Amino acid sequence: MAGKGRFCPAANETSAPRMSNFVFRRQFPIEWGHCDPAGIVFNSRFFEFFDWNTWLLFEAALGVRPAELGKAYDIMGIPLVDAKGRFHKPAKFNDVVEISSEVSKFGRSSFEVQHRISGGGELVAEGSETRVWATHDPADPTKLKTVPIPAAVIERFKAA
Amino acid sequence: MAGKGRFCPAANETSAPRMSNFVFRRQFPIEWGHCDPAGIVFNSRFFEFFDWNTWLLFEAALGVRPAELGKAYDIMGIPLVDAKGRFHKPAKFNDVVEISSEVSKFGRSSFEVQHRISGGGELVAEGSETRVWATHDPADPTKLKTVPIPAAVIERFKAA
Amino acid sequence: MAGKGRFCPAANETSAPRMSNFVFRRQFPIEWGHCDPAGIVFNSRFFEFFDWNTWLLFEAALGVRPAELGKAYDIMGIPLVDAKGRFHKPAKFNDVVEISSEVSKFGRSSFEVQHRISGGGELVAEGSETRVWATHDPADPTKLKTVPIPAAVIERFKAA
Amino acid sequence: MAGKGRFCPAANETSAPRMSNFVFRRQFPIEWGHCDPAGIVFNSRFFEFFDWNTWLLFEAALGVRPAELGKAYDIMGIPLVDAKGRFHKPAKFNDVVEISSEVSKFGRSSFEVQHRISGGGELVAEGSETRVWATHDPADPTKLKTVPIPAAVIERFKAA
Repeated sequence: MAGKGRFCPAANETSAPRMSNFVFRRQFPIEWGHCDPAGIVFNSRFFEFFDWNTWLLFEAALGVRPAELGKAYDIMGIPLVDAKGRFHKPAKFNDVVEISSEVSKFGRSSFEVQHRISGGGELVAEGSETRVWATHDPADPTKLKTVPIPAAVIERFKAA
Repeated sequence: MAGKGRFCPAANETSAPRMSNFVFRRQFPIEWGHCDPAGIVFNSRFFEFFDWNTWLLFEAALGVRPAELGKAYDIMGIPLVDAKGRFHKPAKFNDVVEISSEVSKFGRSSFEVQHRISGGGELVAEGSETRVWATHDPADPTKLKTVPIPAAVIERFKAA
Repeated sequence: MAGKGRFCPAANETSAPRMSNFVFRRQFPIEWGHCDPAGIVFNSRFFEFFDWNTWLLFEAALGVRPAELGKAYDIMGIPLVDAKGRFHKPAKFNDVVEISSEVSKFGRSSFEVQHRISGGGELVAEGSETRVWATHDPADPTKLKTVPIPAAVIERFKAA
Repeated sequence: MAGKGRFCPAANETSAPRMSNFVFRRQFPIEWGHCDPAGIVFNSRFFEFFDWNTWLLFEAALGVRPAELGKAYDIMGIPLVDAKGRFHKPAKFNDVVEISSEVSKFGRSSFEVQHRISGGGELVAEGSETRVWATHDPADPTKLKTVPIPAAVIERFKAA
């Protein structure tokens, strides 16, 4: 899968002197089953696209396959706590779109992923996800507990 | 949920002297997100409808909530091994359909569920699922192993 | 469907002297197919729940079936331009949740719907959708054009 | 998209002297959102995979983009009338699977597509779809009417 995407440093447009972030991009076609009776992508599908591109971004940045992420960093996962989408222009059946994703901000134990989907040279949708670096709570294994994101992880999301 | 469905004995049409089966029925509306650009239910959604009605049928027949089924019978679950759908008439956005489901056949460790979806007095779709009564293989816990379906379970799927 | 929800006036908590809004509530169970490998509702499904409850809220407030909304008001529909979700507590397979939705704000040709999903007495997720009242652009029928929301429509979303 | 798949003639295994069929193959990874609480692909997703690969098979064989198929052949589309799936081995999050699809049979106005999904060198699932070549019924444009599949179309699904 990684071969289909392209890594590339992207100038961070919102804060000039900051380092740029790694960006993971890939192209994919809009399927019949993604679309609603208006013939355009149904909104929940955009959140599927965002979710999967976050996994691919992490794979590309960390060199760790999605299914191995928990084991590699001794976490339960990177659960989503917040998601946003803004839909600018419809994407229709059979359109080929490009999604580009980057971690726009790291907190102590949370981070934000920005996604942009474009098609035909225009912005189709953009979105963001806030996720946490989480482990099982030793006091109550049915609950999650956020833990600090290792500095070595954060380092990998900076473009060279 | 159980309150929305109705139990009722259905004459089994294919084998005269057999006992009738318990049938679980419920009505639900077709949502915007279920439909494709042709304005009709996208085929994969029918398989979601079938799956969920099997869980509700089991809840109704056994008096066991879906999430408790494994624990109640010391199984891992009732994994699907085969699914079929036949689509007779489109169901459109906002149509109210009725799904009725029954176990049409019990084998030693497998069973078949028949589903019928109708709307406006006409058959919209029908389908079947073959599932197995399965537990984790003690020799290799990553694998499943079918086990005999208890007679007491089978008994509950007969109409009074 | 309408019979399963309940209309009720809800005090608007954010602005004291304003009138309260109509709220549409309904309960539904979390299905197996809604959940991901963590055993909890996959985020995109929340956006399906939000979408469908907006349609039901409009049906309840206006007395117009979702499929008739366009014809009733001479619009193409109420396309989504922005969606947000915040996930507080996981909802698991077989949990019964309640979703309550209300239009929190009407602009000239856009409006905001607030959704809250709770389960076991706790807030599970909340979200909002911004939608527009839209028709086909007479100058270019492949495009949409927002039009003013009729005052009579807005009136129906106020609680008695 | 076409570039990711590979065309190749496949020996038809069931009837020795028949010509072989064009086969469209592509590989794709199993996403988090495809999987259920058992950590494996939820059955309805297989039917999404089948559907989309039929579109890609037609694109590859006919050289017509999915969204242009109706216009190219003066049809409304290729609606599904029957779908079957058989699930042999679970596909898990992050597995890379290969799907191969071919038209196994052409009737006068219907055809059958066979799909096989494999992973790690083993058959994961197989399925079939029966679809019809359909146009709007001139007597009642809300209805569909099957029409004969052009010989030139059928010809394109034979391997050289």
